Amino acid sequence: MQTVVHILSGDEAEQQTGLAIARNLLEDETDRIDDVAIVVQAEGIATVRTDGDTVDDVEALLEDGVEVSACSNTLEMMDLEESDLLEGVETVPEGAVEVTRLQDEGYAYLRP
Amino acid sequence: MQTVVHILSGDEAEQQTGLAIARNLLEDETDRIDDVAIVVQAEGIATVRTDGDTVDDVEALLEDGVEVSACSNTLEMMDLEESDLLEGVETVPEGAVEVTRLQDEGYAYLRP
Amino acid sequence: MQTVVHILSGDEAEQQTGLAIARNLLEDETDRIDDVAIVVQAEGIATVRTDGDTVDDVEALLEDGVEVSACSNTLEMMDLEESDLLEGVETVPEGAVEVTRLQDEGYAYLRP
Repeated sequence: MQTVVHILSGDEAEQQTGLAIARNLLEDETDRIDDVAIVVQAEGIATVRTDGDTVDDVEALLEDGVEVSACSNTLEMMDLEESDLLEGVETVPEGAVEVTRLQDEGYAYLRP
Repeated sequence: MQTVVHILSGDEAEQQTGLAIARNLLEDETDRIDDVAIVVQAEGIATVRTDGDTVDDVEALLEDGVEVSACSNTLEMMDLEESDLLEGVETVPEGAVEVTRLQDEGYAYLRP
Repeated sequence: MQTVVHILSGDEAEQQTGLAIARNLLEDETDRIDDVAIVVQAEGIATVRTDGDTVDDVEALLEDGVEVSACSNTLEMMDLEESDLLEGVETVPEGAVEVTRLQDEGYAYLRP
Protein backbone atom coordinates (compact mmCIF):
# COMPACT_ATOMS: atom_id res chain seq x y z
CA MET A 1 0.00 0.00 0.00
CA GLN A 2 1.07 3.57 -0.66
CA THR A 3 0.07 6.85 0.98
CA VAL A 4 0.39 10.52 0.15
CA VAL A 5 0.28 13.06 2.99
CA HIS A 6 -0.92 16.47 1.80
CA ILE A 7 0.35 19.43 3.85
CA LEU A 8 -1.17 22.71 2.72
CA SER A 9 -2.17 24.44 5.93
CA GLY A 10 -0.34 27.21 7.76
CA ASP A 11 -1.40 25.64 11.07
CA GLU A 12 1.79 24.40 12.75
CA ALA A 13 -0.02 21.65 14.66
CA GLU A 14 -1.39 20.28 11.39
CA GLN A 15 2.04 20.50 9.76
CA GLN A 16 3.61 18.56 12.63
CA THR A 17 0.81 15.99 12.58
CA GLY A 18 1.48 15.51 8.87
CA LEU A 19 5.16 14.77 9.45
CA ALA A 20 4.38 12.52 12.43
CA ILE A 21 1.87 10.56 10.33
CA ALA A 22 4.48 10.05 7.60
CA ARG A 23 6.90 8.77 10.25
CA ASN A 24 4.27 6.40 11.69
CA LEU A 25 3.48 5.03 8.25
CA LEU A 26 7.20 4.34 7.69
CA GLU A 27 7.49 2.54 10.98
CA ASP A 28 4.35 0.44 10.60
CA GLU A 29 5.16 -2.85 12.27
CA THR A 30 2.86 -4.82 10.02
CA ASP A 31 5.00 -3.70 7.10
CA ARG A 32 2.09 -3.16 4.75
CA ILE A 33 3.12 0.34 3.64
CA ASP A 34 5.43 0.22 0.62
CA ASP A 35 5.77 3.90 -0.09
CA VAL A 36 5.08 7.24 1.61
CA ALA A 37 5.00 10.57 -0.25
CA ILE A 38 4.52 14.09 1.10
CA VAL A 39 3.25 16.94 -1.06
CA VAL A 40 3.48 20.47 0.35
CA GLN A 41 1.85 23.55 -1.08
CA ALA A 42 0.28 26.89 -0.08
CA GLU A 43 1.12 27.75 3.54
CA GLY A 44 2.28 24.16 4.06
CA ILE A 45 5.46 25.04 2.17
CA ALA A 46 6.87 26.33 5.49
CA THR A 47 7.39 22.70 6.46
CA VAL A 48 10.25 22.24 4.00
CA ARG A 49 11.99 25.62 4.22
CA THR A 50 15.61 25.70 5.34
CA ASP A 51 14.65 28.21 8.03
CA GLY A 52 11.66 26.23 9.32
CA ASP A 53 11.06 24.54 12.68
CA THR A 54 10.71 21.07 11.18
CA VAL A 55 14.10 20.74 9.45
CA ASP A 56 15.23 17.71 11.48
CA ASP A 57 11.98 15.79 10.98
CA VAL A 58 11.90 16.42 7.24
CA GLU A 59 15.58 15.54 6.77
CA ALA A 60 15.07 12.27 8.66
CA LEU A 61 12.07 11.41 6.46
CA LEU A 62 14.04 12.18 3.30
CA GLU A 63 16.90 9.97 4.51
CA ASP A 64 14.41 7.17 5.12
CA GLY A 65 13.14 7.29 1.55
CA VAL A 66 10.04 9.48 1.76
CA GLU A 67 9.59 11.47 -1.44
CA VAL A 68 8.86 15.09 -0.54
CA SER A 69 7.50 17.35 -3.30
CA ALA A 70 6.92 21.09 -3.13
CA CYS A 71 4.63 23.09 -5.42
CA SER A 72 6.55 25.43 -7.78
CA ASN A 73 3.43 27.48 -8.23
CA THR A 74 3.47 28.25 -4.51
CA LEU A 75 7.19 29.10 -4.61
CA GLU A 76 6.52 31.65 -7.32
CA MET A 77 3.59 33.22 -5.50
CA MET A 78 5.62 33.48 -2.28
CA ASP A 79 8.77 34.77 -4.03
CA LEU A 80 10.77 31.78 -2.87
CA GLU A 81 13.61 29.99 -4.67
CA GLU A 82 14.36 26.27 -4.72
CA SER A 83 17.42 27.17 -2.64
CA ASP A 84 15.05 28.19 0.18
CA LEU A 85 13.98 24.55 0.43
CA LEU A 86 15.76 21.68 2.17
CA GLU A 87 18.11 19.66 -0.02
CA GLY A 88 16.39 16.57 -1.33
CA VAL A 89 12.96 18.19 -1.63
CA GLU A 90 11.77 17.89 -5.25
CA THR A 91 9.63 20.49 -6.96
CA VAL A 92 6.55 19.76 -9.03
CA PRO A 93 4.76 22.32 -11.23
CA GLU A 94 1.53 22.15 -9.20
CA GLY A 95 0.99 20.34 -5.90
CA ALA A 96 -2.69 19.60 -6.47
CA VAL A 97 -1.91 17.91 -9.78
CA GLU A 98 0.79 15.81 -8.10
CA VAL A 99 -1.64 14.71 -5.36
CA THR A 100 -4.18 13.81 -8.05
CA ARG A 101 -1.55 11.87 -10.00
CA LEU A 102 -0.49 9.88 -6.93
CA GLN A 103 -4.10 8.97 -6.05
CA ASP A 104 -4.62 7.99 -9.68
CA GLU A 105 -1.65 5.63 -9.27
CA GLY A 106 -3.32 4.06 -6.24
CA TYR A 107 -1.96 6.07 -3.31
CA ALA A 108 -4.29 6.59 -0.36
CA TYR A 109 -4.75 10.22 0.67
CA LEU A 110 -4.25 11.64 4.16
CA ARG A 111 -4.85 15.25 5.06
CA PRO A 112 -3.50 16.12 8.55
CA MET B 1 -7.63 12.37 -14.27
CA GLN B 2 -10.41 13.93 -12.23
CA THR B 3 -10.38 15.71 -8.90
CA VAL B 4 -12.96 16.74 -6.32
CA VAL B 5 -12.15 19.62 -3.97
CA HIS B 6 -14.10 19.38 -0.70
CA ILE B 7 -14.74 22.70 1.03
CA LEU B 8 -16.43 22.27 4.40
CA SER B 9 -14.51 24.55 6.72
CA GLY B 10 -15.48 28.01 7.95
CA ASP B 11 -11.83 29.05 7.74
CA GLU B 12 -11.59 31.67 5.00
CA ALA B 13 -7.97 30.84 4.19
CA GLU B 14 -8.94 27.21 3.61
CA GLN B 15 -11.91 28.25 1.48
CA GLN B 16 -9.66 30.46 -0.67
CA THR B 17 -7.04 27.73 -0.94
CA GLY B 18 -9.77 25.37 -2.15
CA LEU B 19 -10.81 27.73 -4.92
CA ALA B 20 -7.18 28.45 -5.86
CA ILE B 21 -6.47 24.71 -6.08
CA ALA B 22 -9.45 24.22 -8.38
CA ARG B 23 -8.12 27.03 -10.59
CA ASN B 24 -4.62 25.52 -10.63
CA LEU B 25 -5.99 22.13 -11.60
CA LEU B 26 -7.90 23.74 -14.49
CA GLU B 27 -4.80 25.51 -15.72
CA ASP B 28 -2.46 22.51 -15.45
CA GLU B 29 -0.04 22.91 -18.32
CA THR B 30 0.48 19.19 -18.67
CA ASP B 31 -3.21 18.91 -19.46
CA ARG B 32 -3.72 15.72 -17.49
CA ILE B 33 -6.76 16.92 -15.53
CA ASP B 34 -10.00 16.17 -17.40
CA ASP B 35 -12.48 17.30 -14.82
CA VAL B 36 -12.62 19.34 -11.62
CA ALA B 37 -15.54 19.29 -9.18
CA ILE B 38 -16.10 21.28 -6.00
CA VAL B 39 -18.43 20.10 -3.25
CA VAL B 40 -19.29 22.59 -0.49
CA GLN B 41 -21.05 21.79 2.76
CA ALA B 42 -21.21 22.81 6.43
CA GLU B 43 -19.49 26.18 6.99
CA GLY B 44 -17.90 25.84 3.54
CA ILE B 45 -21.26 26.81 2.05
CA ALA B 46 -20.25 30.47 2.54
CA THR B 47 -17.99 30.07 -0.50
CA VAL B 48 -20.94 29.92 -2.91
CA ARG B 49 -23.32 32.44 -1.35
CA THR B 50 -24.35 35.43 -3.40
CA ASP B 51 -23.22 37.70 -0.55
CA GLY B 52 -19.83 36.01 -0.09
CA ASP B 53 -16.32 37.33 -0.65
CA THR B 54 -15.48 34.75 -3.29
CA VAL B 55 -18.22 35.47 -5.84
CA ASP B 56 -15.81 36.40 -8.66
CA ASP B 57 -13.61 33.34 -8.21
CA VAL B 58 -16.55 30.94 -8.08
CA GLU B 59 -18.27 32.51 -11.10
CA ALA B 60 -15.04 32.24 -13.10
CA LEU B 61 -14.68 28.57 -12.16
CA LEU B 62 -18.30 27.88 -13.14
CA GLU B 63 -17.75 29.60 -16.49
CA ASP B 64 -14.70 27.43 -17.06
CA GLY B 65 -16.65 24.21 -16.58
CA VAL B 66 -16.07 23.34 -12.93
CA GLU B 67 -19.12 21.60 -11.47
CA VAL B 68 -19.92 23.17 -8.10
CA SER B 69 -22.33 21.31 -5.81
CA ALA B 70 -23.79 22.50 -2.53
CA CYS B 71 -25.28 20.28 0.19
CA SER B 72 -29.08 20.71 0.55
CA ASN B 73 -28.87 19.30 4.03
CA THR B 74 -26.62 22.21 5.02
CA LEU B 75 -28.97 24.72 3.37
CA GLU B 76 -31.84 23.41 5.45
CA MET B 77 -29.87 23.49 8.70
CA MET B 78 -28.73 27.07 8.01
CA ASP B 79 -32.16 28.26 6.85
CA LEU B 80 -30.85 29.13 3.42
CA GLU B 81 -32.63 28.93 0.06
CA GLU B 82 -31.19 27.92 -3.29
CA SER B 83 -31.68 31.57 -4.26
CA ASP B 84 -29.01 32.48 -1.69
CA LEU B 85 -26.48 30.60 -3.82
CA LEU B 86 -24.70 31.77 -6.95
CA GLU B 87 -26.41 30.92 -10.23
CA GLY B 88 -24.96 27.77 -11.70
CA VAL B 89 -24.29 26.10 -8.35
CA GLU B 90 -26.10 22.76 -8.26
CA THR B 91 -27.54 21.25 -5.10
CA VAL B 92 -27.15 17.67 -3.99
CA PRO B 93 -29.09 16.05 -1.14
CA GLU B 94 -25.97 15.41 0.97
CA GLY B 95 -22.45 16.68 0.27
CA ALA B 96 -20.67 13.75 1.91
CA VAL B 97 -22.57 11.29 -0.27
CA GLU B 98 -21.66 13.29 -3.38
CA VAL B 99 -17.97 13.29 -2.42
CA THR B 100 -18.17 9.53 -1.85
CA ARG B 101 -19.88 9.03 -5.21
CA LEU B 102 -17.24 11.04 -7.06
CA GLN B 103 -14.37 9.10 -5.45
CA ASP B 104 -16.22 5.90 -6.29
CA GLU B 105 -16.21 7.09 -9.93
CA GLY B 106 -12.45 7.56 -9.77
CA TYR B 107 -12.05 11.20 -8.73
CA ALA B 108 -9.05 12.02 -6.54
CA TYR B 109 -9.90 13.86 -3.30
CA LEU B 110 -8.38 17.13 -2.13
CA ARG B 111 -9.24 18.78 1.15
CA PRO B 112 -7.83 22.35 1.39
CA MET C 1 -20.16 2.55 -1.56
CA GLN C 2 -18.10 2.88 1.62
CA THR C 3 -16.63 5.91 3.36
CA VAL C 4 -14.04 6.51 6.05
CA VAL C 5 -14.21 9.75 8.05
CA HIS C 6 -10.79 10.74 9.43
CA ILE C 7 -10.90 12.83 12.62
CA LEU C 8 -7.44 13.99 13.68
CA SER C 9 -7.87 17.65 14.52
CA GLY C 10 -8.25 19.23 17.96
CA ASP C 11 -10.72 21.71 16.48
CA GLU C 12 -14.10 20.97 18.07
CA ALA C 13 -16.07 22.28 15.10
CA GLU C 14 -14.19 19.89 12.81
CA GLN C 15 -14.75 17.00 15.22
CA GLN C 16 -18.49 17.72 15.31
CA THR C 17 -18.63 18.07 11.53
CA GLY C 18 -16.95 14.67 11.26
CA LEU C 19 -19.60 13.01 13.42
CA ALA C 20 -22.41 14.84 11.63
CA ILE C 21 -21.06 13.69 8.27
CA ALA C 22 -20.97 10.08 9.46
CA ARG C 23 -24.60 10.45 10.58
CA ASN C 24 -25.62 11.96 7.24
CA LEU C 25 -23.93 9.16 5.33
CA LEU C 26 -25.85 6.61 7.43
CA GLU C 27 -29.14 8.33 6.76
CA ASP C 28 -28.61 8.77 3.02
CA GLU C 29 -32.04 8.40 1.50
CA THR C 30 -30.70 7.05 -1.76
CA ASP C 31 -29.28 4.15 0.22
CA ARG C 32 -26.04 3.98 -1.74
CA ILE C 33 -23.74 3.96 1.31
CA ASP C 34 -23.10 0.42 2.52
CA ASP C 35 -20.59 1.11 5.24
CA VAL C 36 -19.27 4.04 7.27
CA ALA C 37 -16.07 3.92 9.32
CA ILE C 38 -14.51 6.57 11.56
CA VAL C 39 -10.80 6.62 12.40
CA VAL C 40 -9.65 8.97 15.18
CA GLN C 41 -6.07 9.85 15.99
CA ALA C 42 -3.89 12.70 17.30
CA GLU C 43 -6.03 15.44 18.90
CA GLY C 44 -9.10 13.87 17.30
CA ILE C 45 -8.99 11.16 19.96
CA ALA C 46 -10.95 13.53 22.22
CA THR C 47 -14.03 12.64 20.18
CA VAL C 48 -14.21 9.12 21.62
CA ARG C 49 -13.16 9.73 25.23
CA THR C 50 -15.60 8.84 27.98
CA ASP C 51 -15.27 12.38 29.34
CA GLY C 52 -15.79 14.09 25.98
CA ASP C 53 -18.59 16.34 24.74
CA THR C 54 -19.60 14.03 21.94
CA VAL C 55 -20.42 10.85 23.92
CA ASP C 56 -24.07 10.72 22.84
CA ASP C 57 -23.32 11.18 19.15
CA VAL C 58 -20.57 8.57 19.12
CA GLU C 59 -22.65 6.04 21.06
CA ALA C 60 -25.54 6.49 18.65
CA LEU C 61 -23.21 5.95 15.67
CA LEU C 62 -21.77 2.80 17.25
CA GLU C 63 -25.29 1.49 17.87
CA ASP C 64 -26.13 2.10 14.24
CA GLY C 65 -23.22 0.00 13.01
CA VAL C 66 -20.48 2.56 12.37
CA GLU C 67 -17.05 1.06 13.06
CA VAL C 68 -15.04 3.52 15.16
CA SER C 69 -11.29 2.93 15.45
CA ALA C 70 -8.82 4.78 17.67
CA CYS C 71 -5.04 4.91 17.17
CA SER C 72 -3.11 3.02 19.90
CA ASN C 73 -0.04 5.03 19.05
CA THR C 74 -1.90 8.20 20.03
CA LEU C 75 -3.17 6.60 23.25
CA GLU C 76 0.39 5.79 24.25
CA MET C 77 1.68 9.27 23.45
CA MET C 78 -1.16 10.86 25.45
CA ASP C 79 -0.87 8.44 28.37
CA LEU C 80 -4.40 7.20 27.85
CA GLU C 81 -5.79 3.70 28.43
CA GLU C 82 -8.39 1.85 26.39
CA SER C 83 -10.65 2.29 29.42
CA ASP C 84 -10.60 6.04 28.75
CA LEU C 85 -12.44 5.37 25.49
CA LEU C 86 -16.14 4.73 24.96
CA GLU C 87 -17.20 1.09 24.98
CA GLY C 88 -17.39 -0.28 21.47
CA VAL C 89 -14.51 1.82 20.12
CA GLU C 90 -11.87 -0.51 18.65
CA THR C 91 -8.17 0.23 18.75
CA VAL C 92 -5.79 -0.14 15.82
CA PRO C 93 -1.99 0.05 16.08
CA GLU C 94 -1.74 3.16 13.89
CA GLY C 95 -4.61 5.31 12.63
CA ALA C 96 -2.88 6.39 9.43
CA VAL C 97 -2.25 2.78 8.44
CA GLU C 98 -5.90 1.94 9.08
CA VAL C 99 -7.07 4.85 6.92
CA THR C 100 -4.69 3.68 4.17
CA ARG C 101 -5.96 0.12 4.48
CA LEU C 102 -9.60 1.21 4.20
CA GLN C 103 -8.91 3.33 1.09
CA ASP C 104 -7.00 0.40 -0.37
CA GLU C 105 -10.17 -1.67 0.16
CA GLY C 106 -12.18 0.91 -1.79
CA TYR C 107 -13.43 3.28 0.90
CA ALA C 108 -13.79 6.93 -0.07
CA TYR C 109 -11.97 9.35 2.26
CA LEU C 110 -13.55 12.35 3.99
CA ARG C 111 -11.59 14.76 6.18
CA PRO C 112 -13.89 17.15 8.10
